[in-house]
Amino acid sequence: MAALDQAGPDDISFLGNERYRPQFAATRAGAVLVANDVTDGPADTALVAVDNPTLAFSVVARHFARLSRRFEPGVHPAAVIDPAAKLDPSKVRVHAGAVVMAGANIGDGSEIGPNCVVGADAVIGRDCHLMAGAIVREHCILGDRVILQPGAVIGSDGYGYELHDGRHVKIDQVGIVEIGDDVEIGANTTIDRARFGRTVIGEGTKIDNLVQIGHNCVIGKHCLIVALTGISGSTRLGDFVTVAGQVGMAGHIEVGDRAVLAARTGVTTSLPGGQFYSGYPAQPFREEMKMNAQVRRLAKLVERVKALEKRLDTADPSPQE
Amino acid sequence: MAALDQAGPDDISFLGNERYRPQFAATRAGAVLVANDVTDGPADTALVAVDNPTLAFSVVARHFARLSRRFEPGVHPAAVIDPAAKLDPSKVRVHAGAVVMAGANIGDGSEIGPNCVVGADAVIGRDCHLMAGAIVREHCILGDRVILQPGAVIGSDGYGYELHDGRHVKIDQVGIVEIGDDVEIGANTTIDRARFGRTVIGEGTKIDNLVQIGHNCVIGKHCLIVALTGISGSTRLGDFVTVAGQVGMAGHIEVGDRAVLAARTGVTTSLPGGQFYSGYPAQPFREEMKMNAQVRRLAKLVERVKALEKRLDTADPSPQE
Amino acid sequence: MAALDQAGPDDISFLGNERYRPQFAATRAGAVLVANDVTDGPADTALVAVDNPTLAFSVVARHFARLSRRFEPGVHPAAVIDPAAKLDPSKVRVHAGAVVMAGANIGDGSEIGPNCVVGADAVIGRDCHLMAGAIVREHCILGDRVILQPGAVIGSDGYGYELHDGRHVKIDQVGIVEIGDDVEIGANTTIDRARFGRTVIGEGTKIDNLVQIGHNCVIGKHCLIVALTGISGSTRLGDFVTVAGQVGMAGHIEVGDRAVLAARTGVTTSLPGGQFYSGYPAQPFREEMKMNAQVRRLAKLVERVKALEKRLDTADPSPQE
Repeated sequence: MAALDQAGPDDISFLGNERYRPQFAATRAGAVLVANDVTDGPADTALVAVDNPTLAFSVVARHFARLSRRFEPGVHPAAVIDPAAKLDPSKVRVHAGAVVMAGANIGDGSEIGPNCVVGADAVIGRDCHLMAGAIVREHCILGDRVILQPGAVIGSDGYGYELHDGRHVKIDQVGIVEIGDDVEIGANTTIDRARFGRTVIGEGTKIDNLVQIGHNCVIGKHCLIVALTGISGSTRLGDFVTVAGQVGMAGHIEVGDRAVLAARTGVTTSLPGGQFYSGYPAQPFREEMKMNAQVRRLAKLVERVKALEKRLDTADPSPQE
Repeated sequence: MAALDQAGPDDISFLGNERYRPQFAATRAGAVLVANDVTDGPADTALVAVDNPTLAFSVVARHFARLSRRFEPGVHPAAVIDPAAKLDPSKVRVHAGAVVMAGANIGDGSEIGPNCVVGADAVIGRDCHLMAGAIVREHCILGDRVILQPGAVIGSDGYGYELHDGRHVKIDQVGIVEIGDDVEIGANTTIDRARFGRTVIGEGTKIDNLVQIGHNCVIGKHCLIVALTGISGSTRLGDFVTVAGQVGMAGHIEVGDRAVLAARTGVTTSLPGGQFYSGYPAQPFREEMKMNAQVRRLAKLVERVKALEKRLDTADPSPQE
Repeated sequence: MAALDQAGPDDISFLGNERYRPQFAATRAGAVLVANDVTDGPADTALVAVDNPTLAFSVVARHFARLSRRFEPGVHPAAVIDPAAKLDPSKVRVHAGAVVMAGANIGDGSEIGPNCVVGADAVIGRDCHLMAGAIVREHCILGDRVILQPGAVIGSDGYGYELHDGRHVKIDQVGIVEIGDDVEIGANTTIDRARFGRTVIGEGTKIDNLVQIGHNCVIGKHCLIVALTGISGSTRLGDFVTVAGQVGMAGHIEVGDRAVLAARTGVTTSLPGGQFYSGYPAQPFREEMKMNAQVRRLAKLVERVKALEKRLDTADPSPQE
C-alpha cells in the first residue's frame, strides 16, 4: 500500500481526491482503487472501480494490518493490577507497566497499553483500546470501543478557583468524565472531570491531539474536534458539530447541531446549528469573508477618500477650517 | 451534590451565578446554597443562605469527598525508589509504577501518583500531589502543597539553538524550574527549565492544561493562566496577572501586576499592569473593541464613499482623469 | 554560571544580545564572555572575547554539566525488555519503568528514560535520548542523536474518518513516522503516523513543546517549529523553514525552503520559500503590517469621510434621496 506518487508495480494505491489527478496520471502503482466514473489511467496500472475509494482503501489497509497485528488476551507480569480491580485476565489484554487501581472495571476485549493508568473505580467498556501512557482518572466511565491515543488524560481536575483573602482557593472537582461508545480521543488531549456531575463526550465523537475540553462540557454525538482546540467549561455542543483546528470557545455557551467552525474560530456567544462560522468573534463564514475582503481593500478605500478630498479642494478653493 | 437542572429531592445544589436563575426557578433540588439576598425559591427546596455560595458549595463538596478519599501513606511494592532518594515511607505515598531517582527528596505528606517520574535530585515539598504520569525532571524544585495534574512536565529543556555551519546546535539547558507553594499545574502542561538559573512559577499561581511556559520565564504570584497559552522564554509576569485561553506572548517582555489578558491576546511588547488587554498585537480592551466595531462597519463606510463619489460626479459632470 | 543580573564574583556569565547591555554594565560577575568588539566592562569583571558568546557559553555549560552527568550504560532491573527486542545491554541505558516491546531495536549509546515506551518493531538509532515518559509507537523509526523531551508521542494515529451511514468510520493508519538524525522533539508534542507510507521529520529539525504534526506531513531538514503550532495532514515544509509559536497550517499545502512564519500565522494555501509571512490568512509580512496599520487608522478615515459629507452638504444644500 502506498501513495500514488510513491507506489511501484507491487503496490496498491487509491484516488480519493480530485487534487491528486496529476499524481494518478503519473503513478507507477500496480493497481489503483478509483471511483466508478474513472475509466482511464496509466497503461500498466489496473483500475479497481469502487463506490468510495478512500473507504475501500481503508478496508484493504485493515485487511493487511490484521495479518500482522491482532488482539491477544493476557496480563503482562509487569502490569500492576490491584486485587480489587475487576477484569477477566483471559479476555482482556494489559501490557507491561500498566497500573489498574482498586475497583476499576475493564470490559472484555479491551486492551490497556504499556504504562497506562486506570484509576480507582474507573469503568472501561468492552473492546476499548488505551494506547501507551493514556490515563483515566478515578470514577471516569468509558463506553465500548473507545480509543485513547497515547498520553490522553481523561478526568483531570477542572480549572476552578475562588478568590478568597487574596488567594485562589481550589474548588474541588468531584464529578467525572463520561465517554460514549465509539469515541476516539487524540494523543495528549485532556478532558477535565466535572466540578460535580459529568463532563460528557457523546457517542461516536472523534477528538484530535492536544485538545482541551473543560469541566462540565457536554459534547454531542458524532462531533469532530481538531487539534489544539480549547473548549471552556460548561459549554455544550450539539450533535455532528465540526470544529476545525485551534478553535477556542468561551464557557457556558451552546453551539447547535451540525454547526461547522472553521480553523481558529473564536466563539464567544451561543451559535445556532446548521451554519458555517469563522472569525473571532465568530460570525457566519460569508460575512467574515466579506469583511476580510473589505479589510484587504482598505488601501484602495483610503485612495478613494484622498481623491474625493482633492476633487472637493479643487472645486472649492475656499479655505476649510 | 448536583447542578440545579440535574438535582433531585435528595441532592444539594447552589446558585453561584445570576445566569442560572432560570434553572434555579425550576430546580427540584432538596436544598440550594444561595447568597444572603436570595429569599425566594421553589416551593419544595430549602434555601441555605451563605456569603459565597460557590465557595460554600466547595466546602460541602470537600466534606463529602473526604469521606471516600484520603491520604494514606505507603510505598507500593511496584514503585521504584532509588536507594539514594530521600523520603520517609511512613509519611509519603508512592503509587505503583512511580520512579523516584537518586537524590530526589520527597516531603512528608506528599503523594506521588502511578507512573510518575521524579528525576535525580529533584525536590518535592510537603503535602504535594503529583497525579498519574506527571514528570519532574532532575534538580527541579517544588514548594509545599503543589498539585501536578496528570501528564504535566516540569523541567523539559528550553528551546534554544544557535545556527552554526548550517546546523542548529543545541544550547544546553542547565538551569532548573522552581515552583512556589500552593501552585497547581494542569494536565499535559509543559514548563521548560532555564538555560541557566531558574524558571520561576510564583506562589499560589494556577496554570491550566496544555500551557507552555518557556525557559527562564518568571511568573509572579497568584496568577491564573488558562489552557493552550504559550509564554516565550525569559518573559516576566507580575503578581495576580490573569491570562485567558490561547494567549501567546513573545519572549523577553514584561507584563505588570494585575494585568488581565483576554482570550487569544497576542502580546508582543511589555505591558503595564492593572489594565485589561485584548487583540493581536495586544492593546487596551476598549480600543480593541472600538477598532473591531469599525471593521465590522467597513461595508457601510464603503457605501458612504461610493455615495460621495456619485454626488460629486453628478454635481460636476466634467470628466475626471 | 549565571545570568548577568544574577551573577556574583564566583560566576561566569555572557553578553549574547545587545538588549542586555544595561545588565552587563551593572553585573557583578567574575567573568563574562563577550563578542570580540566589546573591550570595556565593569571594573571587577574579566572579559573573555570570543566569536559567538552565546555558543561559547554553551560550550562552557556543557563542560560543567559533563562533570555531573554522563551516559552510563545499563538496564535497570525494573525496566521491561521484551525478549524479542534487540539491544546490547552493555551499550545502552534503559531506566526503570521503561517498556521496550518485541522487535524494537535500540542503537548503541542510546538512553531510554524512566517510564518510556518503545513499541513493537520501532527503531531507535544511536546516541538517542528519550526522556521520561516519551512514547514511540510500533514500527516508527528514529535516526541517530534524536532527543525526545518528556511526554513526546511519536506515531499516534492520524486523524482520519469517513462518514458512512451517519457515523464517522475510522480510517486505519498503517504508516509510520520516520525521524531524521539530530532531530529534537519537545515535551508533550505529538507526531501522527502516516495513513500509509511515512510522516517525515527531516534531519536537524527542532520542534518545541505541544506541537501537533498531522499524518503524512513531510517536514524538511533544519526547520524550527515553535510551541503550540499545528500542521494539518499531508502538508510539506521545505528545508530551513522557521515556524513561530501558535501557527496553524491547513493540510495538503507546501511551504518553500527558508520561509519564515511569524507567530500566529494561519497558512491556508501553499507559500513560496525565502519570504517572511504573517497574518491569517498568511501574506508577506510587510503587506500584513501595512494592512494592520490601516485598520488602526480606520477611526481617522471615518472622520475624513464624515468631513467630506459635511462639506458636500454645505456646498449643495439641495436634499439628497
